[in-house]
Amino acid sequence: MNCQSATENVFCELIADRQEDPIELAMLHSPVVRDLRRCLGSRNVLSAPSELEVYDCDGFTLQRHRPDAVVFPRDAAQVAQIVKACQRHAVSVVPRGAGTSLAGGCLPVGGGVVVMLTRMNRIVEIQVRDRMAVVEAGVANIRLNRALAGTGYHFAPDPSSQGASTIGGNVATNAGGPHTLKYGVTVNHVLGLEAVLGDGSIVQLGPVEDPAGLDLIGVLVGGEGTLAIVTKAWVRLTPDPQDYRTLRAVFNTLDDATRTVSRIIAAGIIPAAMELMDQAIISAIEEAFHFGFPLDAGAILIIEVDGPVAGLERQTEQIVEFCRGSGAREVLHAATPEERALLWKCRKSAAGALGRLSPSYFTQDGVVPRTRLPEIIRHILAIGKKYDVRIVNVAHAGDGNVHPVMLVDERDPQQVERAKAAGRELLEECIRCGGSITAEHGIGVEKIELMDRLFAEEDLRAMARVRQAFDPTGRLNPGKVLPPMYNLVAGLK
Amino acid sequence: MNCQSATENVFCELIADRQEDPIELAMLHSPVVRDLRRCLGSRNVLSAPSELEVYDCDGFTLQRHRPDAVVFPRDAAQVAQIVKACQRHAVSVVPRGAGTSLAGGCLPVGGGVVVMLTRMNRIVEIQVRDRMAVVEAGVANIRLNRALAGTGYHFAPDPSSQGASTIGGNVATNAGGPHTLKYGVTVNHVLGLEAVLGDGSIVQLGPVEDPAGLDLIGVLVGGEGTLAIVTKAWVRLTPDPQDYRTLRAVFNTLDDATRTVSRIIAAGIIPAAMELMDQAIISAIEEAFHFGFPLDAGAILIIEVDGPVAGLERQTEQIVEFCRGSGAREVLHAATPEERALLWKCRKSAAGALGRLSPSYFTQDGVVPRTRLPEIIRHILAIGKKYDVRIVNVAHAGDGNVHPVMLVDERDPQQVERAKAAGRELLEECIRCGGSITAEHGIGVEKIELMDRLFAEEDLRAMARVRQAFDPTGRLNPGKVLPPMYNLVAGLK
Repeated sequence: MNCQSATENVFCELIADRQEDPIELAMLHSPVVRDLRRCLGSRNVLSAPSELEVYDCDGFTLQRHRPDAVVFPRDAAQVAQIVKACQRHAVSVVPRGAGTSLAGGCLPVGGGVVVMLTRMNRIVEIQVRDRMAVVEAGVANIRLNRALAGTGYHFAPDPSSQGASTIGGNVATNAGGPHTLKYGVTVNHVLGLEAVLGDGSIVQLGPVEDPAGLDLIGVLVGGEGTLAIVTKAWVRLTPDPQDYRTLRAVFNTLDDATRTVSRIIAAGIIPAAMELMDQAIISAIEEAFHFGFPLDAGAILIIEVDGPVAGLERQTEQIVEFCRGSGAREVLHAATPEERALLWKCRKSAAGALGRLSPSYFTQDGVVPRTRLPEIIRHILAIGKKYDVRIVNVAHAGDGNVHPVMLVDERDPQQVERAKAAGRELLEECIRCGGSITAEHGIGVEKIELMDRLFAEEDLRAMARVRQAFDPTGRLNPGKVLPPMYNLVAGLK
Repeated sequence: MNCQSATENVFCELIADRQEDPIELAMLHSPVVRDLRRCLGSRNVLSAPSELEVYDCDGFTLQRHRPDAVVFPRDAAQVAQIVKACQRHAVSVVPRGAGTSLAGGCLPVGGGVVVMLTRMNRIVEIQVRDRMAVVEAGVANIRLNRALAGTGYHFAPDPSSQGASTIGGNVATNAGGPHTLKYGVTVNHVLGLEAVLGDGSIVQLGPVEDPAGLDLIGVLVGGEGTLAIVTKAWVRLTPDPQDYRTLRAVFNTLDDATRTVSRIIAAGIIPAAMELMDQAIISAIEEAFHFGFPLDAGAILIIEVDGPVAGLERQTEQIVEFCRGSGAREVLHAATPEERALLWKCRKSAAGALGRLSPSYFTQDGVVPRTRLPEIIRHILAIGKKYDVRIVNVAHAGDGNVHPVMLVDERDPQQVERAKAAGRELLEECIRCGGSITAEHGIGVEKIELMDRLFAEEDLRAMARVRQAFDPTGRLNPGKVLPPMYNLVAGLK
């Protein structure tokens, strides 16, 4: 073992310590681990149970699955070696970036090798004139945007997890964010991908604006690591808007706020973002950040418009009129860039602030046609009452994307079960409203059982055949996206 | 036979007449035709050679392929019956809308049944508040936009063929158009699809903003009918911009015009459209439409900005400055909506006007990173000289999409061969510049031989496996997109 830095020295010592435990020693020498060590070097392969423990969950806290090993490749060639080694030993391969999945997308269901892409974190190139950046999968979203600061461009997808989540993870889940409303989701910003398929072959697709041949980029984005392990992305850069106007409108009731959203959209105005927060979230955020939100507000909308300076005032006025017309009791402008930044920080840290309300929580993710927003929010509140579960609401309201948060005490199994049932019912309600069971978090392990409510058998069979085309043995991130019967590779004609 | 209208009566009589020809009678009674007649009724199936003749070519004039039959389904269920009948008889199925493909996408290579989708032309629903329209595949692009007039919304993809081409064809080729620069290509405007797969199953995918499960919509769009026959689409509606400013800038040289494009884009300005026309095209258009283009101009740019009124003047001024700074000798504004409409009509009718320059022509379609536009145009001119082929240029310049038109006399086989060679070389030049062999027309039959220059074997194998997943027997639009060796279904592991 060859340790190069002080930090790595500590790490090596930890591993050395662990090797003295006889049980862990056995785990260290399974055939696949030996093979992986040969490929990557020993210190890039973790396999002792105590080391694996931290990789047994992700942002979806209701399930834990221990991997058999965790590996740290440096490039696509090493990822290909890992996939081939796992195929030789009939072991599953589970790609993982920052592990922020809220749907269990990084969980090694039934074991397997977790491929940590976090060391593949180079920003390879920024080509401002062609509006493109080339990044490895493990680059955190925020790092790319920091690197772009001052160039006049940014990477538009802005999931609330962007401080940690990686571009690879954004690609795998086709991540959205508050500004999805105007700028679209991740797939609209991916020009090319390098990826390792289930047989260990490395493909490069794009970069082009409009791909020739079959658009495999389109299906890889949002594939949740079940089709391929994305190792590099060519992403589109979006010009920074010339200016912003950011409003917060305070309402006495949730209903007033959702009707405002519907009316603004129906009038053909597309703000850059339109975010909804309910009373409970507002209180939690206020307690955490002291922004100055009124604690008695029923709901707050954060509405942002952006673009050339000249058009902004008129648009802002129109929006203010709609807010007031739907009963807003107060509409305030962010007066300075710092105030705008703080407002967004508050919104994006909502998940963090929730710890003040409850020992545990899990965030649902559904979407309805934007005109049905008032209806789905009313359903969500009714479902909370029915199951006696406290549900609080944040929503990317402008695009009909709801994120009801179920507050639970994990130590009370009955409460957890009631919360799960409430979550299922509200997603079924989203389907009934003509929407879908996920807007941006993905299916992961969490929503598999709802897939056959949303899709017909033919649709799921088509997906299963495509998955098989990319990964014939079904070892890439198994147990995700498709219900188990559609993973029976042999059973598909 | 049951004829219902005067027109149909004439049609039935024509068929009755034809049945007296003994050779045609034999064709009329092949097993697949009998089967199709049972499914659709006799008058929805053409099979006499004289009737088939008009279906043997499309907008790509260099190849002709006679189908075995042409059928006219009314809905997805009938399309499914057709696909199943063709599978039973091991016959290929080739979907066709308006037949405007410039890459031979509708040609029945090696025979087969052409499925005319033009009777599936209902606009099922327009939901302005949810910004969505539901249309059958055979609806012409322009018909949808006419139906939307006055609602404040439009369907953004605007291929120059939009007066004839169908939404189904736009989806199959992932069509672009002048306004692609700002609004994106067809895939950015498709929320859902109904489609018939190779086994005759009907799938419905979406409609949602961000699809749950695998994004099969993404791969079906641009699949050129090799994965499925799209029968219905849920498309996104785009708010009409509040106003436009449309400029035409006249340059002495092509080089001055392309440098202007590069500079505008590099400055972070994204016009709604930025179209380039060279001297030869200008002359042909002027002769046809008498717009008032100067005949001695080296090149003209049509540049359009759109959005809220307030910001337009400043943007327009900036663009005018860039034009003048790069040597524009004149920059004129379209003074009225009528003048704007005429300017676009001229641009979109460029192909029609070309008949004045040459007995035949074929249009190439390549794309390069937008900063390489001046370089690729210089290459194109040099290639024209090298092969002694007259090449004229229109281009969606803002997104690096070039459409060099090769003027030929089809009666001179040597000239045609030289033109084909020139076409190949200029696409290879696009690849060398970091671009692609098609921006919006698709691969069809025309560009298959260049696919292995653009893609590695692994990439093409991945596409072939995906194709096989959708259409295991390879009967949907065979001979398109992938080189023949990747169609050997049995040869794929």
